[in-house]
This record gives sequence, C-alpha cells and structure tokens, in this order.
Amino acid sequence: MVKIYALCVHLIYSGIVQRSREELKAIRETNPGLKPTLAIIQVLCSVIYPDFVSTQIGLNVMQICLPHQCREEEVIEEILRLNEDSRVHGIFLHLPQSFLSKSVRNAIKPQKDVDGVSDLNVGRVVLGDQRHGFASPVAGAVLEMLARHDAPLVGKMAVLLGLEGPLKVTLQFLLQNNGMMVQTRQWSSKHLSHFEVFTKMFVAAVVICQHVVRSSRRWIQEQQYQPWRLRPLKLQPLSPVPSDIEISRAQTPKPISQLAQEIGLLPEELEAYGNTKAKVHLSLLNRLQHQPNGKYVLVAGITPTPLGEGKSTVTIGLVQALSAHLKLNSFACLRQPSQGPTFGVKGGAAGGGYAQVIPMEEFNLHLTGDIHAITAANNLVAAAIDARILHEATQSDRALYSRLVPSVNGVRCFSPIQMARLQRLGINKSDPSDLTPEEIRAFVRLDLDPEKVTWQRVVDTNDRFLRKITVGQANTEKGHARQTQFDIAVASEIMAILALTDGLGDMRARLGRMVVGSSRNGQPITADDLGVTGALAVLMKDAIKPTLMQTLEGTPVFVHAGPFANIAHGNSSVLADKLALKLVGEEGYVVTEAGFGADIGMEKFFNIKCRTSGLTPDVVVLVATVRALKMHGGGPNVTAGVPLPKEYINERNIFFIFYLYGCSNLKKQIQITHLFGVPVIVALNVFKTDTQAEIDMVCRIAEASGASAAVQCHHWSRGGRGSVELAHAVKKVASQKNHFQFLYNLQDSIVEKIRTIAQKVYGADDIELSPEAQAKIDYYNQQGFSALPICMAKTHLSLSHMPEKKGVPTGFILPIRDIRASIGAGFIYPLVGTMSTMPGLPTRPCFYDIDLDPVTEEIKGLF
Amino acid sequence: MVKIYALCVHLIYSGIVQRSREELKAIRETNPGLKPTLAIIQVLCSVIYPDFVSTQIGLNVMQICLPHQCREEEVIEEILRLNEDSRVHGIFLHLPQSFLSKSVRNAIKPQKDVDGVSDLNVGRVVLGDQRHGFASPVAGAVLEMLARHDAPLVGKMAVLLGLEGPLKVTLQFLLQNNGMMVQTRQWSSKHLSHFEVFTKMFVAAVVICQHVVRSSRRWIQEQQYQPWRLRPLKLQPLSPVPSDIEISRAQTPKPISQLAQEIGLLPEELEAYGNTKAKVHLSLLNRLQHQPNGKYVLVAGITPTPLGEGKSTVTIGLVQALSAHLKLNSFACLRQPSQGPTFGVKGGAAGGGYAQVIPMEEFNLHLTGDIHAITAANNLVAAAIDARILHEATQSDRALYSRLVPSVNGVRCFSPIQMARLQRLGINKSDPSDLTPEEIRAFVRLDLDPEKVTWQRVVDTNDRFLRKITVGQANTEKGHARQTQFDIAVASEIMAILALTDGLGDMRARLGRMVVGSSRNGQPITADDLGVTGALAVLMKDAIKPTLMQTLEGTPVFVHAGPFANIAHGNSSVLADKLALKLVGEEGYVVTEAGFGADIGMEKFFNIKCRTSGLTPDVVVLVATVRALKMHGGGPNVTAGVPLPKEYINERNIFFIFYLYGCSNLKKQIQITHLFGVPVIVALNVFKTDTQAEIDMVCRIAEASGASAAVQCHHWSRGGRGSVELAHAVKKVASQKNHFQFLYNLQDSIVEKIRTIAQKVYGADDIELSPEAQAKIDYYNQQGFSALPICMAKTHLSLSHMPEKKGVPTGFILPIRDIRASIGAGFIYPLVGTMSTMPGLPTRPCFYDIDLDPVTEEIKGLF
Repeated sequence: MVKIYALCVHLIYSGIVQRSREELKAIRETNPGLKPTLAIIQVLCSVIYPDFVSTQIGLNVMQICLPHQCREEEVIEEILRLNEDSRVHGIFLHLPQSFLSKSVRNAIKPQKDVDGVSDLNVGRVVLGDQRHGFASPVAGAVLEMLARHDAPLVGKMAVLLGLEGPLKVTLQFLLQNNGMMVQTRQWSSKHLSHFEVFTKMFVAAVVICQHVVRSSRRWIQEQQYQPWRLRPLKLQPLSPVPSDIEISRAQTPKPISQLAQEIGLLPEELEAYGNTKAKVHLSLLNRLQHQPNGKYVLVAGITPTPLGEGKSTVTIGLVQALSAHLKLNSFACLRQPSQGPTFGVKGGAAGGGYAQVIPMEEFNLHLTGDIHAITAANNLVAAAIDARILHEATQSDRALYSRLVPSVNGVRCFSPIQMARLQRLGINKSDPSDLTPEEIRAFVRLDLDPEKVTWQRVVDTNDRFLRKITVGQANTEKGHARQTQFDIAVASEIMAILALTDGLGDMRARLGRMVVGSSRNGQPITADDLGVTGALAVLMKDAIKPTLMQTLEGTPVFVHAGPFANIAHGNSSVLADKLALKLVGEEGYVVTEAGFGADIGMEKFFNIKCRTSGLTPDVVVLVATVRALKMHGGGPNVTAGVPLPKEYINERNIFFIFYLYGCSNLKKQIQITHLFGVPVIVALNVFKTDTQAEIDMVCRIAEASGASAAVQCHHWSRGGRGSVELAHAVKKVASQKNHFQFLYNLQDSIVEKIRTIAQKVYGADDIELSPEAQAKIDYYNQQGFSALPICMAKTHLSLSHMPEKKGVPTGFILPIRDIRASIGAGFIYPLVGTMSTMPGLPTRPCFYDIDLDPVTEEIKGLF
Repeated sequence: MVKIYALCVHLIYSGIVQRSREELKAIRETNPGLKPTLAIIQVLCSVIYPDFVSTQIGLNVMQICLPHQCREEEVIEEILRLNEDSRVHGIFLHLPQSFLSKSVRNAIKPQKDVDGVSDLNVGRVVLGDQRHGFASPVAGAVLEMLARHDAPLVGKMAVLLGLEGPLKVTLQFLLQNNGMMVQTRQWSSKHLSHFEVFTKMFVAAVVICQHVVRSSRRWIQEQQYQPWRLRPLKLQPLSPVPSDIEISRAQTPKPISQLAQEIGLLPEELEAYGNTKAKVHLSLLNRLQHQPNGKYVLVAGITPTPLGEGKSTVTIGLVQALSAHLKLNSFACLRQPSQGPTFGVKGGAAGGGYAQVIPMEEFNLHLTGDIHAITAANNLVAAAIDARILHEATQSDRALYSRLVPSVNGVRCFSPIQMARLQRLGINKSDPSDLTPEEIRAFVRLDLDPEKVTWQRVVDTNDRFLRKITVGQANTEKGHARQTQFDIAVASEIMAILALTDGLGDMRARLGRMVVGSSRNGQPITADDLGVTGALAVLMKDAIKPTLMQTLEGTPVFVHAGPFANIAHGNSSVLADKLALKLVGEEGYVVTEAGFGADIGMEKFFNIKCRTSGLTPDVVVLVATVRALKMHGGGPNVTAGVPLPKEYINERNIFFIFYLYGCSNLKKQIQITHLFGVPVIVALNVFKTDTQAEIDMVCRIAEASGASAAVQCHHWSRGGRGSVELAHAVKKVASQKNHFQFLYNLQDSIVEKIRTIAQKVYGADDIELSPEAQAKIDYYNQQGFSALPICMAKTHLSLSHMPEKKGVPTGFILPIRDIRASIGAGFIYPLVGTMSTMPGLPTRPCFYDIDLDPVTEEIKGLF
C-alpha cells in the first residue's frame, strides 16, 4: 500500500514551482499586456494562501471574499462574473465542502476550471483527454510524486482515504491507468483530516499554478494566427440554377456562434441577433492589435451596363473558393443594401446563384437595424433644426436663454455640449449669469437661414413623392413652412460617417462636425451647435459594430454600412475591413467590394477610404462580362423586360470579333488601376451563352493590357469551386510587392484635385466650373475645408458625364454643376449632372411577388 | 471472475423491454401529441436494428444513413441538425469505432446522448449523477444483469475485455461502485469479437430504449408547470435614490439565455439580440397549449395628472415582489416606448427607481427593431399609394395592364395577390387575356381619391414640422402634389395590429384588410388592393415575436407593441400576454399595464383587447398617489419645471383633509372596474412627502368604496421588497372567482356603443354627434363595419372631454367630432376633440443631456 498523503508535503519542494515560474516569465516577455490571473473565491479570507502563490510563482491573484452566510446563488453569481472576465485565466473555489454543490461546481467555465471540479472536466480526464481538461490538481500532484518514486506501480494497491467528489474520481482513475489497484475508504480521524487539508492546500497551490499557466498559454495560442478549423457547408449545385431564394433556403446556415468560434472570436466579442447574424465588438481590434493584417483584395468592375456584371457574386464566389476550397482564411466585406430597392425594382444584393450570403432574406431586410438607426439619427437632426428655427423665431433672447439654461432646484448651469458651443463662440465663461446680452444672443441664436438648410430627412423606402415637399404647414408651426426633401436613408451623411469611422470616439466627433446649413451671416452650423451630438452617438452605438453572416459555403462575411456611390463613396466600412484583416491573420485574405465601375468606386476606395483607414490594398480584381464588353464595343441597346438582342446571346455569333475588338473599357479600367500602383486581375464572369472564342479573346486582351492575370469564373453556377482559378491567381498576385500611391495630395487645391480625377481617371480634356461651383469653392476655402478629399458625384454608366457614351469617351470637358461638402464624413462632393437621391416605385414593384407563408414562415418571391 | 459478456445475451429476455413498452404507453396516453423518437446515425443501413426496437418497444425510430466515405464534418453536421430537432429525444451513433472521434461524440447534446458517449455524460455518471447523465447503455445493462445475480459482488474481480472509450470508463466505475475489483484487458480473438459486437447491439438496443423513454419523460416534465428556479439579482437600495440610469447601470443583468432557461424556454425558442434582449418564438404557444394559464393582472390608474402616478413602476415592483420575494412565477408585460419622447420631453418608460427594466437604455432605444419595422411597413404602404395614384393618372388602361401583368418569357399571368383582387371585384377569370376592357379598367384602376387618402406616413421622431406637409412637388411627380401629414410611428395602424394579432396568419390578414382611403366612387381601398400585403407581412415577421428582458431583480419581462392610447387602444400585445400566461403556469401571475387612466386604458383593455384575445382578467390593480388625488380634489395647478406648491409636499400640512376628502376620482375608477365584474386592489404609490395620515385616509376610503384591498407601495425606493404587501393582496384576490363581462355587445349599433361608454364610464349625460360623425356612421354601417368595438379618442386628463375638469365631472354632453376606423386592427375610433399624433421638440429637448462615453461606452443623461 502506498501512503499517498504522507508523501504530498514533499511536493512543494519539487520542480513544479520553478517550472511554473519560468513559463510565466516566458509568457510575460512575449505578451507584455497579459497578466495571468487566478481568481480565488473564499468564505474566510485567509492571507497565507494567495500570498504564497503570488510570491513563489509570480502569478496574479484576485481574491473574492464572500460573507459566511452567503447562499449558493451568490457563489454562482460570482463565478458567472469571473467566467466572463477575460482578465481571469483560472477560478479556484477555496470553499468548505458544503458549498461545492453540483450547480456551483458546474457553473465554472470548463476552460477556467483549473481545479478540475466540473463534470465536463472530470469526464474529459477519465476519458484520457488531458489536453482540454484540467485534472484535479491534487490528483495531478500525487501522480507527479509517484512518477518520481523508484518502485514500479503496476499491481500495487492504493487506498484513498477520506476523499470524495471530483478529486476521488480523478485520482482513482489516474492511479488505475498507471496499473494500480485502488480502494477507497472513509476517514474520520480529526487530526489526520486536518493534516490532509493542510497538505492538500499546499499541493493544490502549486498544481493550480501550473494549470493557470497552461490556461494562459491556451489563451495566447487562441489569439495567434492559425488556419481556421472552418467547417464548410456542402454545396451540391443543381442545373438549371434555381432562384436565389430557393438556393438560399435549401442551405441550412451554421449557428452564427459556431462560425464565430471557428474564426477565433471570443464569446464575449459576439452579440447574436437571432441565429444567423451577430454583431462583433470593436474590442477585437485591441485584442488583436499585434496580429499582422491579411491581404487586402478589392473587387471593382468595368463601367456598368443594364446587363449587370456581378461584382457581388465574384466577391462571394472568391471567398468561397479561398476559404472552403483552398482552405485559406478569408473574409468578404459587403455593403448593407437599402430596403428601398428590395421592394422596388432592383431586388436583393446578397450575391446570386451559388455565390450568396445566407439567409438572403435577413441580409436584404432589417439585418441588425443599422440603417434604421441611421434613419433615426438623421431625422432627429432634422427635427432639431426645424424646431430650433421655430423656437428662435418666436421667443426673445431672454426667454430662449432661460429655457436653454433652466434653473433646476435653484441652480443654473451649462450642459457640456453647451460649454462646447460657448468655446466655439470664443466665450470663456462657465457661469450662466456672467454672460452679457450680446453673448447671450450669440449663444441662443443659431440664426439658421431656412433657405440654406442643407440637411434633409430620410426614409429607407422608395417614396418618390418625398423628393420635394413643403413642411411646417400646420397652424402650430406659425407660418414657418419651408421647402425641403427626403432622401433614401443610405444617402444620409451619417451612413458615410459609419463607413469611414474607426471607432466610437471618432464617430462621435464626426457626427458633431456635420454641417447642417448656414446662418444668415454665412457661418456653417453643425450638429454640435444643435446640441444633438451625444444623442446621435447613443443612437449609433450598436450600428458601429459590423454584422457577421456567412456565405452559402459557411465562410464568414461582414456586412456593414452602404453609403451611396455617387454623393458618397460607395464602399463598405473601414471598421469591417480592419476587423476582418485581423481575424484572417497574415496568411489570410479580405475581399471587399467597391460600388459602380472602377473609375468611381475604386478611385474613391483608394483616395478616400484607404486614405482614411491607412490600409494598403494588395490586389484589385476587375470584373467584366463578355456581354457588357460587347455593349461598350458598340453593341445594340438593351431594355429591361425585352428579350436580349441576338448579338449578346447567339452562341455561334459573328458579332463578337467586331464588338469585343479592343475591349476598350476594360483596357482603360486596367490603366486606371495602374495609376495607383496596384496589380489587377481580370475576373471574367462567364454566362452560359458566352462562347469559348469570346472568353479567350477577352482574357488575351486583358493580359496584353497589363492585367497580372485574367481568369474565367463560374461561381454563379458552381459556387466556390467555380472560382478556384481566380482564388489561385489572387493568392499568387497578392503575395507580390506593390507600389500603392494616391492620385492626388490633400494639400492640392480643390480645383486641382477635381481636374486630376477628371483627366487621369475619366479621360476628360479639362473641367468647367459653374459660377455656383466656383462660389462654393471660395466658401469652402474660406471655411478651411479645402484639404478634404474629393468624392465625385458622376453618372456610373459612362466614364464621362454622359450616360449614353459607352466604351472610352474622349474629347470632352467635365462640367461641375455645383459642389457640396460632407464635413462630418470628411469629403467634398462636386456634382456632375443631377443626382437622384430618392428612387421611385415602378407601376409593378417587386412587392407584388413577395409573400410570407404564415405556417412555414417561408418567404416567397424575394427575387 | 464474472464473465460479463456471456451473460449479456440473456438481457433481451429481461423485463426491460416490457417496462419500457409500458412507460411509453403511459406517456402516449397523457401526451397524445408526443412521439418519443430515437434517431440512429448509421453508415450502412441495416434493417434489423431499428425494426427490432420499434417493434418490441413501440418507439419511433428515425434512421439516418450516411455514405460509406463520409467525413467527420458530415457526421457532425447531422448530429447538430438532430440536436436542434425538437421531435428527436435521443441520438445513437451506430457507427464503426473509427468514426467516434472526440469531436463527434461531444457534438451530441448531453440531454439527447442516450448512448452516454459525451465527455459531460461520462463525467456526470462517474460522479454519481444518474439523474442528469445517461450512462453507457451496455454498462447499464451489465449492472442490471449483475443485480439479478444471487452471488454478492463485493470483493469480486471483473475483467473487462476489448472495451474502450466511454463504455470502458463507465462500466469500470459502476462495477467499482458496487464493490468489485476491475481489470481491463485487450481482446483480439476475432470470433469472440464478433460475438461481442452482436450481443452489444441487442443489449444496447433495449437500454437505449429505456433512455429515450427517460429523455421523453424529462422533456414532458420540462413542459409542465413547475416553480421556476429563478436566480434573482440582489438589490441593495441606496438612499437617497440615485438616478434611473445610475441604478440600471449599477446592476449587472443576467445573460438573457440564462433567464430564458430559468423560466423554461427551450434554446430553439429564443433568438438573442445581444446579451440582454431576446425574441421568443410563437411556437411556444403550440408546445404549451395544454398548459393552464396563470392569473392575469391588469395595472390601471386614476385619471393622470402632470404629477405622474407610476403605473409602470407599480407593474415592475409587483413582479419583482411576486417573483423574487414570494417565489411565485410572474411576468410583466410592457409596451415598447416610442423613441420620440426619449429625446424630446418625457424621458424613458422602463419604470424608475428600484423598479425598472434593465438595461434601461436598451429598452428605450432601438430594442429589437419592432418600431423600425412598423415604420418601414407603414411607409411602404404610403409610397405605394402615391406612386399608384401617379401611375394611374399618367397611363392608359392598356399600358397599366401590360405593366401590372407583364409578359415574362412570353407568358402573362396574375400573381396570387392580383387573383385576390380579381375575386373581390367579382371577376372569376385567371387568364389575363380573357378580361374585357371594362374588367381591365376595374382591375388596373384603384381610382383612389387623393383627397380621401387616410393613410399617413410615420417617423419615430418628435418632428412637429411634419404635422402638415405637401408632398409630390418635384417635377417628376407631374403636378400631383397633395397635402398630408406624418404621425409618430406608434400611431400607425400597424402598431395596433401588432398589439392585437394572435399569429402570423392573422397578422397577414389584418394587414391586408387595412383601409388606406377610398376611391372616387366611395369604395374603401385596402392594402391588399395595393398588392402590398405580403411585403408587409415579410417586414413584420420578426416584430411579431415578443422581446424578453428582465427587471432589476432578474425577473422576466416581455416588451411588445406600444400603440397610442387615444387613437388606438394603448395596451401591450395580446401575444406577449398569451406567451407569458403559459410560461408562468397555473400558479403564476402575468401583470400587464394599460395606458392612461382606467376610464380609457382599462376600458379598452377589457372591451377591445380581452374581447380579441379571449383572455379573462383576474384582478385589477388601480394605481393612485396622494398628490394626484389632492389635485383631483381641487388642489392648485402644477407646472413642469416650477417647484411644487406646498399643498403637495408640506409634510405636516392641513390641506390634506380638505383635498383628499372623498377621493372622488379614485372612487369613480373603482366603480368603473366593477362594471366589468373584476375585483380591484388600490395600490397607493407612496412618495416620501406623503404623511401617514394621508396614506391611511386614502386606503380607508378605497376599501370603503369597494376595493378588495388598498395597500401602500414602496417599490421606487426599495424594489420588490417594497411591494410585497401588494403582491400578497394580488395573490389573495386573484384566487377568488370573478364575474367578468363586457360593457357592450358588438351587435349594438355604433351610436349605442359610444353612448354606453360615455354614460357608464365617463359619467356623461349623453353624446352629441357632429354631422361628419353621423355621415361616417352611415358609411361604416353601409360598408359592414358596424360590429367592431369602439376605441374612444378622448383626452386622458379628465373623465370628461375637458382636460381641465379634474375629479369626477358631471352634467356634460360628450361631443363626437368625427369618427374613423382602423379596419385592420379591428376597431372604430370616435374623435372627442383634436388628438395630436405628432409630438414636438421643446426649446431644450432631453438630448442636451444625453451623451456616450466613447471609451467606457456608458450612456449619460438618459433621465
């Protein structure tokens, strides 16, 4: 019989302490921010125990002392709190046996259960899984001791005295696994029981330390780059390809929490919105700050035609190929679509065919409410503007002042946002009674010129009757009616801010800077002047977190922000890209999409988005189709709802050489990419009517024009498998060094910047400013807004300002009709022609086909 | 040595089969809907195994056959699917050992792991927890056999041959627990190995059956009523009471999934929205259909004054007392507040002090997006109306027809919603080419009269400038401008529908029935005529699920719907109440609140909400305050922002006898409650300035006036503990039988119904109809709308139509200015005076104080 307990005390002299100390030191050196911490829940707070541990091993100890008569729920409450505390790597219950009920033991998260008391850890250990489970420390210590014993253990009898619960079970098993016979007996001698408790305490201390060190190491490993263990969803494409919603519905998405775990997100970084969507916390950026970024891939397109090019499907097909087929970490970053077109004309934007985000109806409807939050924030500003104009018009300075700075319980004081306004006005006073009448007047009167309010209300509905309206016609508004308009919600400056911001503080500052109009003496009036900045930040606090979804093949997608691509920059959010670049790690890929053709979306991606974010793109994928290139080459016009002319679909047609010859638009867009020093791959999105000769010709011309590669893609009909060739090309080209550069310097004058874009990108001979545009430039120069980047509001249907001019128009002068500014978002947008910011409903909108089965809850007719 | 394997074959003759069969029969008799089901995942689908099981035991077997070369992920995928399938009660992997990896074994949900192969189940079993864990069936069978053996087991040696994994570990333990010595050995004889496999199969079969039966029984137990094992959150009230947001922030809410589990929700019935809110599936109603309802408690109030009565805090304080202190299952059902007032004047609606819903900022902001969904749906109808008027005005019948019923790939057909319209028009044709020109005209032209459009747009912002507007002034709308208005979102008829519907099918039908205006020849035009019904249902598919949150003491709350209390019925949703009544079970309590005073909110609760839902209330809690009663007794006027007159707060004042004498308004509201045959308890919400003499007087008068009880409440300063007396009173009174009755019959004429309410509830001498009101009554009678209940739109500040008349006005004639109808929601609403449906922003709105700390993410200044 081996006398186990007599031996235990020797353990504290063993090498465990020394080993743990050294490991801890190594961990600290490579991870200066990390403080491996053991939390001890105690009823009476003895000082010896943690002191011993922290001194000997150098571990951080957090001691939680509970009152003597505390109830089970209180212990559990503490445990649950520590479970969620990411600073804690191990939890130890230094409690009398009577407290260690099943519920208490199992409340501890298994990965923090360094004392090995949870059912799951015991199960793991007895099943031999020492990698994931923590064995009871005393049991571990006993085994460690026995291993140093010279005598062989096999066949020996061990008697376990006075043990119970997890320790008894674990020790029994470990001894038996070493070939020993085990008997367990009750123990009642008080004296030895004390001895046992005493030795157990010391023994446990050192082994627990080992466990906390191991737990910390696991934590660190989880933070580091590793290929994801992603479980792809199987895809069995049908032919002919069913409708988008049928394909989406046929696939069962993974629970979003599972996907999050597969890509290395911590549970506390995730906020599920149902089972297929989740918001991701920005704290991730901090946790992974030392992680190198992955490769950054932009998907852009040739000049759009009514035939559609399929940038979104290429984006999704490419990540499906990279993640599910090449087993490379990859993320797609997409824009959230407006709900307007979903019920209007266009239909969804979740990709199509076998390259989709699922569930596509969630993607296309409310998603996680970001656009609704933008609508609420935008319209609060609008309501504040008109209410303020009314209140100023109907009250004296005194009355306004006493209402704006009221006496509460006899005390008057400025709110922080009012102090900010005083400072902007140069009034350095903080006591409301100190202001002079002139200062009061300056403070209470924004004096907004109703004719010069530039802020519009928004709805996320295609409501053409709101394009021009008169508001304030009720008697209660006392004749202060004025003409204004509603825009579609995604045209709000707040959407552009969401897409460009890099965090809560920055977003709050940008929201405050938004200019909503100007005063009667020409001063810009901001959201901050209205006092609404904080409320806007509160309304947007959840919208700032990107939404995680998945593709048809179960690979991750961020959906975040969707600013208009003409009056704004048409790209998904900087934050989604940044989070994704950290999550994929340095061997991974983030594929993001720019709206419209490369001349607009890509130019703004580089000059506005990358400039703001500081991120450098590695490769551009330029999407083209044979049909669209034929149209650019002079092919006949196409009308929606009318069968395609034979020039586009005749399988053995003779027109292709004629129309495709030169592929001028494609060539030009390749050249535009090269202006920025970034390599480009042409992705030819193949339709079943394309002939091999056509495909070969386009690819040949693309490569001859300087594309690093030109490959055909079949993701629409085959999913990721159909884009494997593209994925290989992206992998190869992205690994090459490039020489990314901006097209202009911010310090160039506004006119110079516009001219640079017009000439170098659009191919214009020059630009021509209207008097309004010139006046605005003077005004912006005077206000100090001239160093902002330029966001051209030009038609997407031509490289020029004339939508009907296909191919590569030349010999034109680009007219600048007017110039506006989004100061909060941080760009100036020249208007080239008239931009509609509110779509309308056609005679037969999409909604005629949309329905919900009340029993199965299935959605029908969503494209 | 006991030869275990030789004995196993005998098992199939044992009583297990018989026992299982009988238990199964018993289960089926009491739960006719339940089909206990075992899912077997197999690689080769042998037929013997499931046939044997289903024949012998009568168990339902679901056989999943995987291809021979399937990968680990595919097995896991199947398991995950079965985990979520609530029809499956047990999962058995009938797979070769090579498939049973750790990941595969542990993919099974422990409660469905009837084969006892998961780490957690093994841990539970070896720790002696047979109640929650399933032991490996073979091990169980062996033990069962040994128990029948006459020879004592203690001290005997058992040799386990050729076992591994969970079975080996479990069997070893169970044998040792019976005092046996165990040795394990490898086994290599092929012949005996086959024998072993064969016997194992049969043995496992019967024991697995036992386990599935046990699992089904557990499932049934979970469905049945039981006191919740709710972990209340500790409350340590401070004095003086801090601000609402400080109190809310000081408490850490339970993870919402934990609360859901505590109250008996299944994981698949929950859709988390972040960690503190979750939507609950309506499928719950089906699962718990045989569960008796809990007690149904309505909180109403005396006629409101600017001093505030605190109905919401009483509601929350009461459930905190019932759940956390009396340990009775209880649920609060609250309305979702509009965002407008949050940033305008009123502030939040999450309760206050130590009786709150937390986190209060989530409650008061976007919540789970229901109001945003209503806004989107409402405005889609509005956009469809104006676009339709324009398209009809600018196109010929032919052009409209060819666009509404286009040729797609050469085929023209009506969509289902167009077929429905044809039927309403009495055109029984389904081929578009069969319609006569007259029929085409009738089909394509709604012929909406722009002057008679009653549908308004909505925003959830206090935007007074939208009270009267002109839309359609852009050139693209070709001169079809018209005057209209925006209402606050909660005034939308869709909100009233959400509050009254009982399921998806009913909601879809109600949305389709909504009348949006009338045609030039006086016919009502519905949402269905516009073709928008399906899209509305799709937009509202998530909003129909109530949102689960919690009180400061961790007790459950449903937040769902919040219709206006004047032009609509001002009560939270029927669905939330129904779900809650099932969840609390027959010994539990659901406390729901009605807006405004009892004369309005409660009257509508009974006559509209209870009539629609079929639910019967058990008791009314009528909230009063000393201060408000003084005002009704003739106390001086009160103005916001000005200190209260001494009559209300002077601690030792002499006015109380004078003003409180008779408590007329309270008495009258008690009488109103009695009209409906429901007992009433007066809850006196105590303020610190109230004196004991005042409190005693009010309680005495209340009881003398017929209240079943009158108790003082201190929830605001003390939380649930301060409402324990009220909770006891509710428990006592709710257990008594009552004689609930409606105030009028639906078949009464519209005038009679209005007169009944005016005379019996308001105390009017009679009613007086304006000519407009009379004309509308004639119109509604003609359209067949006369059998709808009445929803009075009257001021809430007086029992009469004159807001300044406090107490109990008499001798007045109630003027009915106009009458409108919400056909989808299902009520007629007479207008008594002018109802504002769009609040405005004051000079200094709440938002001046609201801010977000960008670092801590804490919200400041939200009341």
